[in-house]
Amino acid sequence: MSTAAERLVVIGGDAAGMSAASQAHRLRPDLEIVAFERNPHTSYSACGMPYYIDVLIAEADDLIARSPAEFERRGIQARVLHEVESINTAGRSVTVRDLVADRVTTVAFDQLVIATGAVAARPPIPGIDADGVYTLGILQDGIRIREAVDRDHPTRAVIIGGGYIGVEMAEALVGRGITVTMVDRAPEVMLSTLDPDVAALVSQAVRDAGITLHLDERIEEIALRDGRVAGVQTSSTLLPADLVIVGTGIRPNTRIAAEAGIELGNSGGIIVDDRMHTGTEGIWAAGDCVETMHMLTQRPVHIALGTVANKTGRVCGINLGGGDVRFPGVLGTAITKFFDTEIARTGLSEREAHDAGIDYSAGMVQSTTRAGYYPGAREMWVKLLAERGSGRLLGGQIVGGPGAGKRIDTIATAVAAGITAAELEYLDLSYAPPFSPVWDPVQIAARKAAAST
Amino acid sequence: MSTAAERLVVIGGDAAGMSAASQAHRLRPDLEIVAFERNPHTSYSACGMPYYIDVLIAEADDLIARSPAEFERRGIQARVLHEVESINTAGRSVTVRDLVADRVTTVAFDQLVIATGAVAARPPIPGIDADGVYTLGILQDGIRIREAVDRDHPTRAVIIGGGYIGVEMAEALVGRGITVTMVDRAPEVMLSTLDPDVAALVSQAVRDAGITLHLDERIEEIALRDGRVAGVQTSSTLLPADLVIVGTGIRPNTRIAAEAGIELGNSGGIIVDDRMHTGTEGIWAAGDCVETMHMLTQRPVHIALGTVANKTGRVCGINLGGGDVRFPGVLGTAITKFFDTEIARTGLSEREAHDAGIDYSAGMVQSTTRAGYYPGAREMWVKLLAERGSGRLLGGQIVGGPGAGKRIDTIATAVAAGITAAELEYLDLSYAPPFSPVWDPVQIAARKAAAST
Repeated sequence: MSTAAERLVVIGGDAAGMSAASQAHRLRPDLEIVAFERNPHTSYSACGMPYYIDVLIAEADDLIARSPAEFERRGIQARVLHEVESINTAGRSVTVRDLVADRVTTVAFDQLVIATGAVAARPPIPGIDADGVYTLGILQDGIRIREAVDRDHPTRAVIIGGGYIGVEMAEALVGRGITVTMVDRAPEVMLSTLDPDVAALVSQAVRDAGITLHLDERIEEIALRDGRVAGVQTSSTLLPADLVIVGTGIRPNTRIAAEAGIELGNSGGIIVDDRMHTGTEGIWAAGDCVETMHMLTQRPVHIALGTVANKTGRVCGINLGGGDVRFPGVLGTAITKFFDTEIARTGLSEREAHDAGIDYSAGMVQSTTRAGYYPGAREMWVKLLAERGSGRLLGGQIVGGPGAGKRIDTIATAVAAGITAAELEYLDLSYAPPFSPVWDPVQIAARKAAAST
Repeated sequence: MSTAAERLVVIGGDAAGMSAASQAHRLRPDLEIVAFERNPHTSYSACGMPYYIDVLIAEADDLIARSPAEFERRGIQARVLHEVESINTAGRSVTVRDLVADRVTTVAFDQLVIATGAVAARPPIPGIDADGVYTLGILQDGIRIREAVDRDHPTRAVIIGGGYIGVEMAEALVGRGITVTMVDRAPEVMLSTLDPDVAALVSQAVRDAGITLHLDERIEEIALRDGRVAGVQTSSTLLPADLVIVGTGIRPNTRIAAEAGIELGNSGGIIVDDRMHTGTEGIWAAGDCVETMHMLTQRPVHIALGTVANKTGRVCGINLGGGDVRFPGVLGTAITKFFDTEIARTGLSEREAHDAGIDYSAGMVQSTTRAGYYPGAREMWVKLLAERGSGRLLGGQIVGGPGAGKRIDTIATAVAAGITAAELEYLDLSYAPPFSPVWDPVQIAARKAAAST
């Protein structure tokens, strides 16, 4: 590496790190940029992995937005299978292990981006390390699970955790002809992100797809036979399984940052300002390893989603390249589907509003995705929360058939802009019979939420 | 009719009139409410007619939200086949012709709602009244067209006018196995509502569906044979046809209001305040016969859409029932589809922004409805206009595959709330591979529009 140019080192070659690298390169072509990634892949869509396992997407390569070679051609050095082991903030360097040569070198930096992402939680369940038990964090996990399904032809899977990963993997494994049982310690699936009344609709959709749900149950151990998974022992029953997916959440990957004295927040994520700068001069962070500000509560939260990773990475890269862009914060907007049931949420749930000390009213309505008489009209539910007194929208949740989910963006925009439920009711939204009833379900929910604010 | 109670007379039994009647009845059950409708039907979905003609919807009754008998049961008198011929503002009465008995009576009112709707334009083309030539305004028009298709098995149709009705009818007639030719005097279809670059995408979709487009052509006459339509003579050619649909726009139906001295605006619609009250005490108006305020230009516009009719009707009814609700105005949001191409717009087009004297920048992008690698991902285009200097969003237009169109609501909400293109770029919108790329196409367009403001 040349020592003449100013050098930017990026730790982590996925969405946030490489967005930052690309923006920095665009604005400061003079920068020498080196990104280190411990895994074999750069810039891939982790969110696409369940669909790759379901063989809706043929090749793992299809999930890769840009390979190391493509970055190199664009003037960004992308070193995969290189793991940064430590950051020396005073000495302005990192130590990097070449995982192939198993050799450690020290690389100096002028600026540093920490984009180490998040790691899938591995709860301390006896037997969790056995053959046949998988988490889904990085692309290699997705590749391994698909290989296992292709090779071992499992017939019974247990999914531990009914969150986004659990629900998406349930669809994927049913799609592969596997009988799926799902276990969650909460009384409904997706209860960490949805209100109980909305989550109950998702639980029902999961059951309707032929999946056995074990709710309110804890995992005691993974049962083994000959060192391989044979089942899952819950607090109430033994579920036979030849494949187990653990989807119990993720946590920010911040060990080397913490060891270097870079400050972490209560969420466990690295603390950054709205320009994605850490408290240490010349050291930036972005993506799943940082905490961001919730736009409504102004409290830091850790939300590991591709949207946030791409945005914070871009903001980071523009700022370190000499620009000035502020990340406005998050609303916790998310969407997924389970077969043809779409599920989306934004802003505050009832519990989050309560925890933030905000007095709210809620309006939940059942309507249809299209005009009721139009072919393909499907049931959909919209729930909206609005602040009592001001009427300001706080959040929304949607469950329903095809076309229901993306309406969450209308709600997210309304919440971010600070408009009231009453304003949303009369807003000039679009209508034609193939797209919605004449009053969009979002507006019917707004009317109901407004009526009690 | 009893003379003891205060009486509300409603002229027009469709969306606006009956919404007003229903809200007034809910808030003031003491009111005697009589609605007069000259056609045989109340409260139907005019927007559903093309799909009824296409036999996607089996019965005309499926389009009717509430019949006269249902209104009667709810305490609202709905007299169909009764045409109000004049309004006596000083005498507080209307004259009503019973179209069956052919008898005129005078009915006194304390309050009056004018909801006379709009009528399809019948341009002065020689031959336009011939058999086989149809406009599509009221439900009976839809019924007549479907009957004609069922009975006469037309093989060649010419559609005059490439607006919403023209495009929707083209799909319907192709669906019935008819060879369709479309004529428009403008250089693209839908040019009264879309910018030329966006409209060109719709013109291409129309051609791709096997429809012959004659653009930049005027209609000279309807050619007849034995008193029936035989073709359409345009400024350049004779198009053979056994069915002609005239979709050249609509105008507010305001003759009796004007004759009664109720003030009309330049748009031709009745002038109302934001509570839907006319300039004459106790006389209200709502729906396709009124003009409304454009939220961005604060200029009156005439927008005849079901959404506006339902909203203004509701506002009218709540206010005359003693409530106080203000209609916030319109953005001109509209959506339709042509086969699987979705088309939507909101806010100001380039021409409208120019006419309003607003300096704007535009950003148009091509992206995909879903993650590019996800099955079913289709091309979509988003165009956004933002005000130069402030960056405030002014409007947007979308053309694209399934899932593209309803994103217009995100833009409409952003425009109504007054946020900037730069704010929309970083807003926390939803993402998952089956729903969008990680940067929603709306946000990519926002970035482009923001870059030049």
